[in-house]
Amino acid sequence: MAGNSFGKLFKLTTFGESHGPAIGGVIDGCPAGLKLDFKAIQHELDRRKPGQSNIVTQRKEPDTVEFLSGIFEGKTTGTSIGFIIKNTNQKSKDYSHIKETYRPSHADYTYDKKYGHRDYRGGGRSSARETACRVVAGAIAKQFLSTISIHAYTSSVGDIYLEKPYQDLDFTQTESNDVRCPDSDVAAKMIDKIKSIRKEGDTIGGTVTCVLKQVPVGLGEPVFDKLHAELGKAMLSINAVKGFEYGSGFCGTKMKGSEHNDLFNKNGSTKTNLSGGIQGGISNGMDIYFRVAFKPVATIMQEQETLNTDGNIVKMQGKGRHDPCVVPRAIPIVEAMAALVLADYYLQNKTYNM
Amino acid sequence: MAGNSFGKLFKLTTFGESHGPAIGGVIDGCPAGLKLDFKAIQHELDRRKPGQSNIVTQRKEPDTVEFLSGIFEGKTTGTSIGFIIKNTNQKSKDYSHIKETYRPSHADYTYDKKYGHRDYRGGGRSSARETACRVVAGAIAKQFLSTISIHAYTSSVGDIYLEKPYQDLDFTQTESNDVRCPDSDVAAKMIDKIKSIRKEGDTIGGTVTCVLKQVPVGLGEPVFDKLHAELGKAMLSINAVKGFEYGSGFCGTKMKGSEHNDLFNKNGSTKTNLSGGIQGGISNGMDIYFRVAFKPVATIMQEQETLNTDGNIVKMQGKGRHDPCVVPRAIPIVEAMAALVLADYYLQNKTYNM
Amino acid sequence: MAGNSFGKLFKLTTFGESHGPAIGGVIDGCPAGLKLDFKAIQHELDRRKPGQSNIVTQRKEPDTVEFLSGIFEGKTTGTSIGFIIKNTNQKSKDYSHIKETYRPSHADYTYDKKYGHRDYRGGGRSSARETACRVVAGAIAKQFLSTISIHAYTSSVGDIYLEKPYQDLDFTQTESNDVRCPDSDVAAKMIDKIKSIRKEGDTIGGTVTCVLKQVPVGLGEPVFDKLHAELGKAMLSINAVKGFEYGSGFCGTKMKGSEHNDLFNKNGSTKTNLSGGIQGGISNGMDIYFRVAFKPVATIMQEQETLNTDGNIVKMQGKGRHDPCVVPRAIPIVEAMAALVLADYYLQNKTYNM
Amino acid sequence: MAGNSFGKLFKLTTFGESHGPAIGGVIDGCPAGLKLDFKAIQHELDRRKPGQSNIVTQRKEPDTVEFLSGIFEGKTTGTSIGFIIKNTNQKSKDYSHIKETYRPSHADYTYDKKYGHRDYRGGGRSSARETACRVVAGAIAKQFLSTISIHAYTSSVGDIYLEKPYQDLDFTQTESNDVRCPDSDVAAKMIDKIKSIRKEGDTIGGTVTCVLKQVPVGLGEPVFDKLHAELGKAMLSINAVKGFEYGSGFCGTKMKGSEHNDLFNKNGSTKTNLSGGIQGGISNGMDIYFRVAFKPVATIMQEQETLNTDGNIVKMQGKGRHDPCVVPRAIPIVEAMAALVLADYYLQNKTYNM
Repeated sequence: MAGNSFGKLFKLTTFGESHGPAIGGVIDGCPAGLKLDFKAIQHELDRRKPGQSNIVTQRKEPDTVEFLSGIFEGKTTGTSIGFIIKNTNQKSKDYSHIKETYRPSHADYTYDKKYGHRDYRGGGRSSARETACRVVAGAIAKQFLSTISIHAYTSSVGDIYLEKPYQDLDFTQTESNDVRCPDSDVAAKMIDKIKSIRKEGDTIGGTVTCVLKQVPVGLGEPVFDKLHAELGKAMLSINAVKGFEYGSGFCGTKMKGSEHNDLFNKNGSTKTNLSGGIQGGISNGMDIYFRVAFKPVATIMQEQETLNTDGNIVKMQGKGRHDPCVVPRAIPIVEAMAALVLADYYLQNKTYNM
Repeated sequence: MAGNSFGKLFKLTTFGESHGPAIGGVIDGCPAGLKLDFKAIQHELDRRKPGQSNIVTQRKEPDTVEFLSGIFEGKTTGTSIGFIIKNTNQKSKDYSHIKETYRPSHADYTYDKKYGHRDYRGGGRSSARETACRVVAGAIAKQFLSTISIHAYTSSVGDIYLEKPYQDLDFTQTESNDVRCPDSDVAAKMIDKIKSIRKEGDTIGGTVTCVLKQVPVGLGEPVFDKLHAELGKAMLSINAVKGFEYGSGFCGTKMKGSEHNDLFNKNGSTKTNLSGGIQGGISNGMDIYFRVAFKPVATIMQEQETLNTDGNIVKMQGKGRHDPCVVPRAIPIVEAMAALVLADYYLQNKTYNM
Repeated sequence: MAGNSFGKLFKLTTFGESHGPAIGGVIDGCPAGLKLDFKAIQHELDRRKPGQSNIVTQRKEPDTVEFLSGIFEGKTTGTSIGFIIKNTNQKSKDYSHIKETYRPSHADYTYDKKYGHRDYRGGGRSSARETACRVVAGAIAKQFLSTISIHAYTSSVGDIYLEKPYQDLDFTQTESNDVRCPDSDVAAKMIDKIKSIRKEGDTIGGTVTCVLKQVPVGLGEPVFDKLHAELGKAMLSINAVKGFEYGSGFCGTKMKGSEHNDLFNKNGSTKTNLSGGIQGGISNGMDIYFRVAFKPVATIMQEQETLNTDGNIVKMQGKGRHDPCVVPRAIPIVEAMAALVLADYYLQNKTYNM
Repeated sequence: MAGNSFGKLFKLTTFGESHGPAIGGVIDGCPAGLKLDFKAIQHELDRRKPGQSNIVTQRKEPDTVEFLSGIFEGKTTGTSIGFIIKNTNQKSKDYSHIKETYRPSHADYTYDKKYGHRDYRGGGRSSARETACRVVAGAIAKQFLSTISIHAYTSSVGDIYLEKPYQDLDFTQTESNDVRCPDSDVAAKMIDKIKSIRKEGDTIGGTVTCVLKQVPVGLGEPVFDKLHAELGKAMLSINAVKGFEYGSGFCGTKMKGSEHNDLFNKNGSTKTNLSGGIQGGISNGMDIYFRVAFKPVATIMQEQETLNTDGNIVKMQGKGRHDPCVVPRAIPIVEAMAALVLADYYLQNKTYNM
């Protein structure tokens, strides 16, 4: 049960530490006969990779995916798809500052207590480097779900919010700026915010909004495996995520039923969509939208006190090249996890037709 | 995959519709030798049952659990525990008003489209009546986890908020009022709010906060099965839930890393707890706390327009006895799901010791 | 993981001890819209029930199944199907003879050691009474797979063998005699054998052969979940089973490749079928056939020495009414498990079509 | 569900085709802190590899395993262990003879029908090359289960049987000859048999017996996941296996209960062991032993008729270097699968202690 798999029918299992020879994964259950666009897969990885702009970490890793199986003559064979991404940036650095200390608000302490020892180099398995494998699998899931559109964007950085509802946004503009906010004015403020935070040697949180369009009616399973429950788990499994809401979310708790109910049109669509495209855990054909909260990155370039493995409080300071704000690089990860959830339910849904 | 099971090692599978002969479930994986307190189990059901106070639905159902297996001489045997709760309130009513209409913001439309037909009586499988089975299993999980304390309480009803942090509350007062808010002044306001909403024939949303104390270090699995990700899924699977946040949650997105990081004490505890007791998906021994958003109940006593199965828009009005606010009865459900998640991870964690 | 579930997409979870109030189960994943023939389900239970003929145990239990959920207006709804079978024969007997002794070749000793205590009444959870729940679920699976025919029959009792290959048998004759052997001459010898064994207060083993016809090409999953591997597991999970072989089975080990290979006809069928209808773990459209070995029932009416819970060797003798040979009543169980395996793979196979 | 995973708590997922760049796998759930003996792992691979003796295929592949994750400073970290084995023998050969034909009694036809296309080079995913990954994971499971001894050996080749019971054999002799039969006289006959069969351009089947000693009491789960049921599935999932029996097996069907029952000694051991070390699906502390039937290899060096993809019957002849008898190389695979089953149940069993 060691937690390295996601999905039931379209299933991803991942492995790898940030400073081992490679990270990688196995996709099991991808239907046969899917013609893959390998450039599109690499493009998703490039959206996530370090060093892509001047508001993200300046580490350089090409993050090139190599497929080892499950694909023949450019098409999936229905058997398991193995892949690896080599770690090219694993130079033997001095890790003594983290070998013997537990960084605050990282997983160092909990891994050590749970497992008795840990790969301390760069966070080991708890490093967000692992999410590159999610992006590979999600890119394949996106191709499988070619008629569904999946758009995530930065909806806040610190206290700078994109106030417009998603319906008023032009998603083609999301990639036009480094922070991945489809409104250029707000994007500029977010970028300034991140730069100023970085100058302080500090980090800042933010939120990502994701919109899924053209999802067919009927995806999701009742009771425990409701569509939004699995979307929530998927998002909460991403490093640094602290919250998830869909449709009316936390704001909906202040509303009355008479305000919140989505009245029907004759064709089964609804006049409003506070339900967020899901009713009783099952998609109803309306847009699905949700919001994901990311905390500020724990590694800061300021001196902090921390605990060492001898039980003493010591001073430490972040080294290396880290993200001042995780949100811009999280966009493709949120999309990938959404694609994995949808692909899984799409396959599950096929089992109900007699 | 039809969604009726929860958990991997401490596993609950449920069945039953609101108007069938009975609902019930099977608990598989509960360790052998657990001496059960049957009164405590029934007590949890009584906290959830309809008709318990004058701010909840006035339907009367005794909700008496009958155990059919897996228990011998008062102790669990390690084999599957089957149980049923008879539906005593299933009188043959006139359901024609929902047989041919899809109630707004209910699961009627999506079930019909997914499965081709549906048990329309009282919501069928999508009824929140199903959560009674979760409460039974959760009550057993609580007894298994006897050293962990699990306290949920109403933290808002509509725009009435309990502003105090959980540390300032006396949880022994939660059950002292009908709305299950441990602050009596705020509770009184919440109760007034619910009564006034009910008079309007309307409903209102709210939030539940839950605090888990004395959770041992090390529960949770890295990567996809992080402790908070599974807690999030568990909560989002409860009827009417629209959001989940833990620790600093959505507020944490506005913070800087230097503010958000939880610095260590020498004993491994932390001075602050914005992490919410979980780091890298694994419990760190601090209190775990999270907040769950419930939308207003969709069934209102006002006339609404809706869609019928012939594709026409018609008028309908809620009948019967419904909750004006779901939150007071949701408290034991939130606790039950938290207990199920913890029991499952507790067992998973045992598999890591050599 | 406690072992009480079978199947991945068409999934059965069972509960219940032989002397509790009821046994039962939950079927999750049965597609919606299946019109059920309830008489046919009860008929399968009647084929398994005690007291049905004079060569089986003379215990009387009606074994009437009651469905509690998942069915509306005679059709499956796609939600979980809960059912129970009340134990009517659970009179408070004197169980002291087994309370403090471990019956030889039963599960008494291993359950006690594994779980620390056990329900000693009639074998508790280890009783073959549990298989009645498999028959219920299998009967529904058979109806789901209406175009596939599943025929099991008694192919040996002790050293009395039905030598004819299955192709030479008339399966309509299987139910014409109490031992369920489709050849009336051999059946008569088997019945004599069982009667003579019973007179000695002894028991005897036997084999069941099962033939699956009109299985579509493509069922089964490669590598670990080969169709015959899951069939083997299904059969080996039935009480008293010691072996499984399919196609050429153990005899095939003595053959040469040039003899064993099944050459093709132009339509993709094969001239011979030593493969037993499965190649590479996937059905090829030919008849699937396999053989299951049942040991003699462990409860005998002769005095035996055994161990008591104080660590002393004591004399004991079987009491009550037991089967002298388990095979006649095992026929519907073998068929039920085969149906469950096929239904599961049938649903899995639907997930591969783009 | 695509069948590429085995185990629940000690879980192996594999990928790879015989002629892709590499095969590999992920082991998830191996407890942390296990110090690995890498030479012992490679030694198991060497026992399976082609070209190791003159009675197996003369293909040359070094089969060197490379670990990519989950191990730090020589010890398992509790996170997923990824590994690959590069395919060094994947020279671009002429595969046109199998591209357009379905080899008799191979998986070519069924894969093509199930998935719509297939990697035809060397059998693709259906190649027994995949079992190398099982051997890697099994070797780690063996090290985890260091107190349990697992010994498999060749018990028959064609009609040459090793008649001695396993108790009379010296397992230290198993590796002393190429056929892996611990009796040197019988081994010599088996080797002669294989050589003579090879000269004919033909192949021959055989059986493997496996003995598990010092298995603790209590492994296995009741009802559907009985220890022998999972062992059976594990063995039947190995390429070319047609049957499985344990303890008295098919012979036990001819016995009476009074002969078959294993009477107890005062210490809980039994005087006989026809049960094969398992009662009610749970290990009882006695030796576990079972027998596995392997059919003759389907690829023969004689001309055969077969079907091509145009629906015509054509002549074909095996090319390349194939095993005349699969059994000698299957010994480490049988042991590996047994180790995986035991490791999984060992971890499951830990979840029952309060």
